[in-house]
Amino acid sequence: MKRIRVGLLGFGTVGAGVFHALRSQEEIILRRTGAVFDIRSILVQNAAKERPAEVKPLITTDFRRVLKEEIQVVVEAIGGIEPARTYVEQAIEAGCHIVTANKELVAKHGVELERMARRNGVHFFYEASVGGGIPVLGTLIHFLKSNRIHRVSGILNGTTNYILTRMAEEAAPFEQVLEEARQKGYAEADPSADVDGFDAVYKLVILGRLAFEADISVSDVQREGIRDVTAVELAMARRLGYTVKLLAVGEQYGENGPISLGVEPALLPLPHPLASVNGVYNAIHLEGDMVQDVTLVGQGAGEQPTSSAVVEDLCNLSLLPSPMRSLKTEPLILPAAETGGRRFVCLETREHGVPEAKTLKSRLESIGLSVEETTVSPEGGAAFILRRWDPSYPSVLVAELGLDLARISVRRVFGTEAAAKNRSPEVGTAV
Amino acid sequence: MKRIRVGLLGFGTVGAGVFHALRSQEEIILRRTGAVFDIRSILVQNAAKERPAEVKPLITTDFRRVLKEEIQVVVEAIGGIEPARTYVEQAIEAGCHIVTANKELVAKHGVELERMARRNGVHFFYEASVGGGIPVLGTLIHFLKSNRIHRVSGILNGTTNYILTRMAEEAAPFEQVLEEARQKGYAEADPSADVDGFDAVYKLVILGRLAFEADISVSDVQREGIRDVTAVELAMARRLGYTVKLLAVGEQYGENGPISLGVEPALLPLPHPLASVNGVYNAIHLEGDMVQDVTLVGQGAGEQPTSSAVVEDLCNLSLLPSPMRSLKTEPLILPAAETGGRRFVCLETREHGVPEAKTLKSRLESIGLSVEETTVSPEGGAAFILRRWDPSYPSVLVAELGLDLARISVRRVFGTEAAAKNRSPEVGTAV
Repeated sequence: MKRIRVGLLGFGTVGAGVFHALRSQEEIILRRTGAVFDIRSILVQNAAKERPAEVKPLITTDFRRVLKEEIQVVVEAIGGIEPARTYVEQAIEAGCHIVTANKELVAKHGVELERMARRNGVHFFYEASVGGGIPVLGTLIHFLKSNRIHRVSGILNGTTNYILTRMAEEAAPFEQVLEEARQKGYAEADPSADVDGFDAVYKLVILGRLAFEADISVSDVQREGIRDVTAVELAMARRLGYTVKLLAVGEQYGENGPISLGVEPALLPLPHPLASVNGVYNAIHLEGDMVQDVTLVGQGAGEQPTSSAVVEDLCNLSLLPSPMRSLKTEPLILPAAETGGRRFVCLETREHGVPEAKTLKSRLESIGLSVEETTVSPEGGAAFILRRWDPSYPSVLVAELGLDLARISVRRVFGTEAAAKNRSPEVGTAV
Repeated sequence: MKRIRVGLLGFGTVGAGVFHALRSQEEIILRRTGAVFDIRSILVQNAAKERPAEVKPLITTDFRRVLKEEIQVVVEAIGGIEPARTYVEQAIEAGCHIVTANKELVAKHGVELERMARRNGVHFFYEASVGGGIPVLGTLIHFLKSNRIHRVSGILNGTTNYILTRMAEEAAPFEQVLEEARQKGYAEADPSADVDGFDAVYKLVILGRLAFEADISVSDVQREGIRDVTAVELAMARRLGYTVKLLAVGEQYGENGPISLGVEPALLPLPHPLASVNGVYNAIHLEGDMVQDVTLVGQGAGEQPTSSAVVEDLCNLSLLPSPMRSLKTEPLILPAAETGGRRFVCLETREHGVPEAKTLKSRLESIGLSVEETTVSPEGGAAFILRRWDPSYPSVLVAELGLDLARISVRRVFGTEAAAKNRSPEVGTAV
C-alpha cells in the first residue's frame, strides 16, 4: 500500500466533493490502485466558517503551511486565475503533482503550467476541467493516439443547455428561464460566464489543444452567447427538424492545417448525436480519420461527477503517462466564415402579415436566394434555411419582403452532409 | 524510435484494416508514441487468393512461421474459437503480447487467456472486441477506477439496431428488413449470431467482467433475439413514448452483490440516452456511484473503427498498464425476474374488435391490473404498460378481454424512475 499525501486547495463544491469521495471510495481505490490518498491539509479563505469535525483539524488559510505537510499532490479546487495560478506554480516548483478542475486556469495558462510541470518531473492533470465526469480528455490523449482528429464539437455548458431545453419545452423567454435556473441552483447570481459562452470557450480551448496539438488561446475562439435566442426561433427551428444548442466547435482543415474555433447558438439536425443531449447534460462529439466518430455524454457539472474526474486523475498519477504531444506554437487560426455555408433565418414580425410558406419560398427564390426549407407560424413569423449565406442578406430581406419585422435571427446550421462533403479530402474519410 | 515486430493473424475486414491503418497512420503513431509497428508476417487460410503487392511477401499459411519472425505482438483477427485460441495460447507462451478483436474468444476464454498472459509477462488487450471504435473497455479500466459500477447497459449489435430502426421507420416486417440488411452488407448470410443475440451476449460478458470484477460466463446471460419483434409493437411502443432496442443489461445489486445479465428486445423511454442511438451505431451507458452516468456512442463495427481500436491497443501496449483487477470467481447470478417490474404488452388482433383506449384501461383495471398507459391502433391491436407483471397475465388477458388475438408480445420496460428507485441504496446515488 502506498500512502499518498494530498494538499487540497479550496473547499467549495468540488473541494468538499473530493474530500468526501476519497473517504467513501477509499477501499475501492486501494483495491484497484494499491494507493490510499491522505488529505493532510485544506486551504480555505475563511477559517471561521463552520466545517464538519473531520475537516476542522486540516483547515488552514496559509498556503505555505500546505506545502510544509510534505505533500505529493496538490488538488486545486479554488477556480479562477489568482491565487490559484500562483499556488499551482509554487506547488509544481516544490515537486508536487497537480490535479485541477479549473478550466479558466488551464485554458489561459495550461500550456506554460504543463511545461513547468514537465521540467519539474511532475504531472499536471485536468480531466475535471472539461465535461465534469465525462472522461473526454483521457479519451483524446490515450484512446485516439493513432487518429487525426479533424473536428471536436460539444455541448460543454450545462447551464445554457438547461436554459435552451426549458425555453423550447415551455416556449418561455430567456430571462424567465434564467431566473428559474438560478432558483434551482443551475445558474450563478452573475450568469455571464455561462450564458455569454466564456465557460464553453475555456473548455473548447482545452479540447482543441489536445485534438489539434496546437497552442490555442482563449482569444482564438469566436464567442456568442445565448442571451438573444428567442423561444420563437427555437420553435421554428424544431418545425424544420432542427434543435438549437450552444455549440462549441473546433475544426482543422487538413493535417497541420488551419484551425477554426467558435462557440455560438447553432442549429443541429435532430438525428445528430448531440441533438438529443438535453438539460444539464454535456456531450462531446469527436471525429477522427480512423474511428469515424465517437460521442461521449454525461453530467458536465455537479459535486459527484466533477469529483469523480478529480479522483480518477489522482488514481492515474502513478499509472498513466503524461501525453507525448508537442504543441504547434503558432497555429493558423481561421475565423468562422461570415460568408457561405447554410444558415437558418428566423423573422419575427410585429403584425400577422406573413405570406404562406410556399409563397414565401418563391419570393425568396425570386430575389436569388437558395432556399432549402421554409416554415411560417400561425402566431406570425417565418423561418427558412438558406444554402448559402452572405452578410448583405438581412438588408435584402428587409427591403424585398416588406414585412414589419421585430427581429431577424441568423444562426449557423451544423452537422449536415454538405458540411461533411466540404471537408478537405486530406482530413480523412467523410462520415 | 522503437520498431515493434507484429504478426497478423487473419486478413479479412479487420486484418486488412489493421494492415492499412498501420501504414496510413505510421507518421502520427511515431510522433505520439515513438514506435513503428512493422508487420512481419500475415497468416491466412488461402495462400492462393489474389492480394495487394505489398501484402504478398508477408503471407503464410503456417502459424509456426509467424512466430519464427521474432514477433513481439500478435494481432489476432481470425475470429471464432479455433484455431484462434490455440494460436493465441502459443503466442503468449512464446512471449508475445496479444491484441485481439475477437469477442467470442474473449467472452469464452478471456479469463484464462488473461491469466496466462500475466504469468508470461505479456499484455492481452481486446478493446476492439466490444463496440468497435468506442473505447469503452479502456474507459471502464482506466477512467472509472474509483467508481462502483452498478449498471452497464448497451446497444451492442449494429445489425439488430439497424433492423429495428428500419422496421420502425418503414413499418416493415423483420424478414423483409433482414433481407435489405443482407443486401447492404450489414447482415451475414447466416444472421443468427446477430439477430439471436449471441454477439451482444459475448460483448455483455466482457463488459460485465470489467464492470463488476466477476468471472462472468456466456451461460450467465439470459438471451432473447429480435426475430419475433413485429412492426406493430414498434409502432405501438412509439405511441406510448418508447422505442424498442435489443438491449444488453448487466446490473449488480449492492457492492459485491448478485449480478443479473440479459440481452433482450426491451422498451426505452424516448429521453433515455440510448433511445436515440439508431442505425448501425452502438452505445454503452455506464452508471457509477460517483460519475452518475456516462454514455459512449460510436460505430460498433466496420473496417476503420474496428482497426482504430486494434491500433490504439497496439499503441498502448508499452504505455498503459494491465488492469489491477482480480475477478470474483463464483459470482451469484440472479436470473432476470419473471415477476414484478414494468412490462409493455402488445395485443395484435385478427379482427377490428378492440375497444377504445379508455374502455380498455378500465377493463384491465377491473380485473386487477395496474395500468400506466394505454393505446389502441386504428388498424386493430392495443398496447399498454403494466406497473407489475406476473407470468399468469397472458392467460388472464386472453380469458378476460375476449379478443380474437393473433399475438401477444410482452417486453420489459427499461430505464424508468421506478427502476432507479428500486435499486438497492448501497449501490450508490440513484440517477
